[in-house]
Amino acid sequence: MTVRLAIIGAGIMGGDHARLFAAEIPGVTLQTICDADAARARAVADKVGARHVASDPEAAIRDGNVDAVLIAAPDPFHAPLTLACIAAAKPVLCEKPLSQSTRECLAVMEAEERRGKRLVQIGFMRRFDPSYVEIKNLLASGALGKALMFHCFHRNVAPAYGVQDSMAICNSAPHEFDVARWMLGSDYTSISVFRPGGANAPQSAPVFMVLETAGGQLVDIEVNISAAYGYDVRGELVGEKGSAFLRAPVLADVNLGLKSYSVYPEDWRPRFVEAYRRQNLAWLKSLASGVPAGASAWDGYCATAVAEAGVAALRTGKTVAVEHVARPGFYA
Amino acid sequence: MTVRLAIIGAGIMGGDHARLFAAEIPGVTLQTICDADAARARAVADKVGARHVASDPEAAIRDGNVDAVLIAAPDPFHAPLTLACIAAAKPVLCEKPLSQSTRECLAVMEAEERRGKRLVQIGFMRRFDPSYVEIKNLLASGALGKALMFHCFHRNVAPAYGVQDSMAICNSAPHEFDVARWMLGSDYTSISVFRPGGANAPQSAPVFMVLETAGGQLVDIEVNISAAYGYDVRGELVGEKGSAFLRAPVLADVNLGLKSYSVYPEDWRPRFVEAYRRQNLAWLKSLASGVPAGASAWDGYCATAVAEAGVAALRTGKTVAVEHVARPGFYA
Amino acid sequence: MTVRLAIIGAGIMGGDHARLFAAEIPGVTLQTICDADAARARAVADKVGARHVASDPEAAIRDGNVDAVLIAAPDPFHAPLTLACIAAAKPVLCEKPLSQSTRECLAVMEAEERRGKRLVQIGFMRRFDPSYVEIKNLLASGALGKALMFHCFHRNVAPAYGVQDSMAICNSAPHEFDVARWMLGSDYTSISVFRPGGANAPQSAPVFMVLETAGGQLVDIEVNISAAYGYDVRGELVGEKGSAFLRAPVLADVNLGLKSYSVYPEDWRPRFVEAYRRQNLAWLKSLASGVPAGASAWDGYCATAVAEAGVAALRTGKTVAVEHVARPGFYA
Amino acid sequence: MTVRLAIIGAGIMGGDHARLFAAEIPGVTLQTICDADAARARAVADKVGARHVASDPEAAIRDGNVDAVLIAAPDPFHAPLTLACIAAAKPVLCEKPLSQSTRECLAVMEAEERRGKRLVQIGFMRRFDPSYVEIKNLLASGALGKALMFHCFHRNVAPAYGVQDSMAICNSAPHEFDVARWMLGSDYTSISVFRPGGANAPQSAPVFMVLETAGGQLVDIEVNISAAYGYDVRGELVGEKGSAFLRAPVLADVNLGLKSYSVYPEDWRPRFVEAYRRQNLAWLKSLASGVPAGASAWDGYCATAVAEAGVAALRTGKTVAVEHVARPGFYA
Repeated sequence: MTVRLAIIGAGIMGGDHARLFAAEIPGVTLQTICDADAARARAVADKVGARHVASDPEAAIRDGNVDAVLIAAPDPFHAPLTLACIAAAKPVLCEKPLSQSTRECLAVMEAEERRGKRLVQIGFMRRFDPSYVEIKNLLASGALGKALMFHCFHRNVAPAYGVQDSMAICNSAPHEFDVARWMLGSDYTSISVFRPGGANAPQSAPVFMVLETAGGQLVDIEVNISAAYGYDVRGELVGEKGSAFLRAPVLADVNLGLKSYSVYPEDWRPRFVEAYRRQNLAWLKSLASGVPAGASAWDGYCATAVAEAGVAALRTGKTVAVEHVARPGFYA
Repeated sequence: MTVRLAIIGAGIMGGDHARLFAAEIPGVTLQTICDADAARARAVADKVGARHVASDPEAAIRDGNVDAVLIAAPDPFHAPLTLACIAAAKPVLCEKPLSQSTRECLAVMEAEERRGKRLVQIGFMRRFDPSYVEIKNLLASGALGKALMFHCFHRNVAPAYGVQDSMAICNSAPHEFDVARWMLGSDYTSISVFRPGGANAPQSAPVFMVLETAGGQLVDIEVNISAAYGYDVRGELVGEKGSAFLRAPVLADVNLGLKSYSVYPEDWRPRFVEAYRRQNLAWLKSLASGVPAGASAWDGYCATAVAEAGVAALRTGKTVAVEHVARPGFYA
Repeated sequence: MTVRLAIIGAGIMGGDHARLFAAEIPGVTLQTICDADAARARAVADKVGARHVASDPEAAIRDGNVDAVLIAAPDPFHAPLTLACIAAAKPVLCEKPLSQSTRECLAVMEAEERRGKRLVQIGFMRRFDPSYVEIKNLLASGALGKALMFHCFHRNVAPAYGVQDSMAICNSAPHEFDVARWMLGSDYTSISVFRPGGANAPQSAPVFMVLETAGGQLVDIEVNISAAYGYDVRGELVGEKGSAFLRAPVLADVNLGLKSYSVYPEDWRPRFVEAYRRQNLAWLKSLASGVPAGASAWDGYCATAVAEAGVAALRTGKTVAVEHVARPGFYA
Repeated sequence: MTVRLAIIGAGIMGGDHARLFAAEIPGVTLQTICDADAARARAVADKVGARHVASDPEAAIRDGNVDAVLIAAPDPFHAPLTLACIAAAKPVLCEKPLSQSTRECLAVMEAEERRGKRLVQIGFMRRFDPSYVEIKNLLASGALGKALMFHCFHRNVAPAYGVQDSMAICNSAPHEFDVARWMLGSDYTSISVFRPGGANAPQSAPVFMVLETAGGQLVDIEVNISAAYGYDVRGELVGEKGSAFLRAPVLADVNLGLKSYSVYPEDWRPRFVEAYRRQNLAWLKSLASGVPAGASAWDGYCATAVAEAGVAALRTGKTVAVEHVARPGFYA
């Protein structure tokens, strides 16, 4: 009755998922921790009490004692390993992005459709964040009227690793692309990209994007990977009758030294720990029920399609149309 | 390796605990749902997939297939059933209050000490609430200097059931008594009670208490069981160098109709859902480790002792000394 | 058509008033700046363009070229100089407290009544603070239901001058005594005083007071003259249906160094600058209209009466009844 | 020693200014209230105690008993009447916009320069709003690092009068154009305009603009004249090290009916009453000192230049360069 899980990748994300499943998610057994670095796999496995370690992900996926797979390997392996899961008919929760290439995303979609069963969930965990869910519910209630705009702000203290100028669009922005598209229920049609400093902007400069949707809404996104002051994700949905802001979890207000302050986290984990927990609970529940939850391979494809257009807009300084294949009926 | 749990009481609290254990807590099996009302036990058991139902709590506690017990029966049964758990050498998480009589609390303490093993945890879940924990950590860090005062506010929309004037002190205030004592690390020495309306106050009028601790701190507590506007628990710890306020979880700020607002819950559940989850996780972990977590029978006794003094202060209009037995070494 | 004003006292308060009248209040001419320290009077007069300086306050008050008087001399001179204004039939705005002795307050009331005309306004400027006014209006609207409690917090960074333990009650608390009495529209009947540290509290320890009113409301007041973290005055009015908090002016929220913060002022001036301006405008308007505004000598007496009872409560550790003469019809 | 003022225009803005000068600004005499509608001029004059009424603005400006002029006539009269003031060598505070045509703005600048003396101040009162000033000071302090972006939001409950789609850009946005340019200390080089609904947007739809400055900063502005929920002006300055948000004045937080709320004003007056007061005080002070304060005719021209480019961008859907004449040395 318990799901035997293989976690592929024992880095920061994989380790966090392993701890989360072990300590806070019922109905799952950590069968395998797999990492190319055997010592790293072993360290995580020991900490969480996993049954086995492995270093060959394809074998780990095929293993008959594994019922489901979580992929937290480096980005370039996301799509190939997802394809391996589909080949093995194993349900998979793959960290975002599915791929930085739409072509590869389409390959995953085709494989999944051929397999005839929804097996792939993408780790766009914000769809499970209580604040985003609250605002989506408020919008659905009609209280705000029709949605007009969604203002999004994504700020990191500092770039996580080596900076390249498209990273903000390809790596951080997909969370915003996906959650805004999910919030508004409409696909993007165009994207314009601006940067302070323009063409001479340093690689770490913020990126400011304005997107239009098929439903006529505007989405603007600041991605600021060198924001310095804290990890801060904000959003305001503006409707015809009113608006709503996301609130991040804050535990205390402190009065000290002529300031009243609350604290920003240094990275995403304190902000989204509950979203990950709910995502993973929902994923397990979907395995039992057979009803998919969260973001599909199609959603992963859509986020990548707009990121590709965004990189083109950044390079050319022009508004770029977002091109999609039509949504396959399989993902309706 | 999984703990087989009996839940005694299938009312609101028992049902909530059952759902929580079933859906969000790994390492536990719902063995028995026990309630004097068999249909109620059955309804909860069906919803959460428990193995058995029962209507005799003593038998359910003794059952060899039960490893641990959660007591969520009506208040008068808390102490007797806790004694039954001790008799059966079963670890027990008992909803607060342990008893409204210090005599009965002492009986539990004596039984537990005779048994020679810490078996009892009291459901003062606020000790696991992330906001209270954050402020306790901040205090421990020295940033606020020495604690001087703790201002506490506890407000309900409306009395949960038939009002009697001491209820605010015996039923709602114990949460405040316990969490402030835990926060400050000091026992109460006196309590004064005030009410708007004085001696003629309606039964549902707020109660305002001022307590002194052995460490020389002041704790003031407003318990307002007819606050009408929402369920609202607040606290501010004042130290020599600064102060800190609890923040309650808020998901969104909404702008609508000339107001900017956030929402209050109607009852305690949305406010403390995370505290319950963490409490129950910690309890299970303590069963495995053998290291007690949370509030002990001694803590339950202390909360009851101050409530008894509070009722006397309410009746007499005078400041009343809080009398304790000395803390047994068993609870050091 | 312009009021020729004498300001008695050229210290911090007198200098602030002089600047305020000169720069931001129409309809007034600064006729005289009077201070025992002639150089200090001269410095202020030069800065604000006053016509004369003086060192004899009684003469300055009698001066035929003076139409009205603002008293900002040290506290012990408030009542004697107010009496001099009454003797000269000059309207006077006297800084609080009118006196620390009820006997002296009564002497002022008697003199004013004998003169047959309301001449005295006490500088309880909080009655003109937009936030207090907003909450009083909200209460009057009925939206909050009947008032039950008023929670008040008054915090200074550090004692302004030499500390004595009754100072918090006699010097800072009168603002709270007056504004809560004005807010609730009811006189005090009793006061209880608590301190962290109890009888051994250092002179600078906070004082926590609980007062009952004739209308059956509770007022609790923390006066914390060594609060360290900032100048912070807060208040929450609790009614049967809801509650309202004062908000202090805040200009910006700053995100820096893993904190989101706003700034506390170091003293009362930034917090209450608007209250002083509105008070002084209203006072001038009342001179023209003949309709008294703000706090009267009676209000000054009432604040002193409760402060006297508070000091007795502090000394004895007992609840002390607040004794009043009956309100004279002259002050109805 | 008092400035004799003529107010041209006795509508909402003119009436507000008249009341402000009469009741809260020292050093000014209301000499003339002038309006084409004589009854309207009379009503305002009676309310504020002005000496004369007039219906011919040019004559009122020339009147030898008038020292200075405030223009609050309808927008098309702003530039012609400002020219009349320059012709009469009278200092003038002209409500924004100076003109909706850059040609007309340039004519004012040329006339003023020919006159050889700075006579014109434009009523961009936000430059005196304490919150904007606070953030500008914070930026100047270096605490935030170099400015990168300024996010601006301007929302009205409903259009003030007949809607045309360019109104948001020509009438409301100039406040944002000016205050962001003043905040950043840099001129605009380009503007892009987006609307929810795109080309088919209703006339009342929001406008979302992205501007680049010569200093390489981005300014994005939402102007939403049908925001429904309240009058709400927000701004966040983002620097390299941190960011700062404007806070609007809020008097109280109210807890009622399962909500914690603060109130939005219905229009701009409660939000900016203090900015108007400080602007008008500063203007009077500048008349005495001869040192210009606030926005100049050049600043008025710059706001109009970017509005013209914005309308072109709205019409064409393309990014439009903002063209300026070079800043004359006269306005250095």
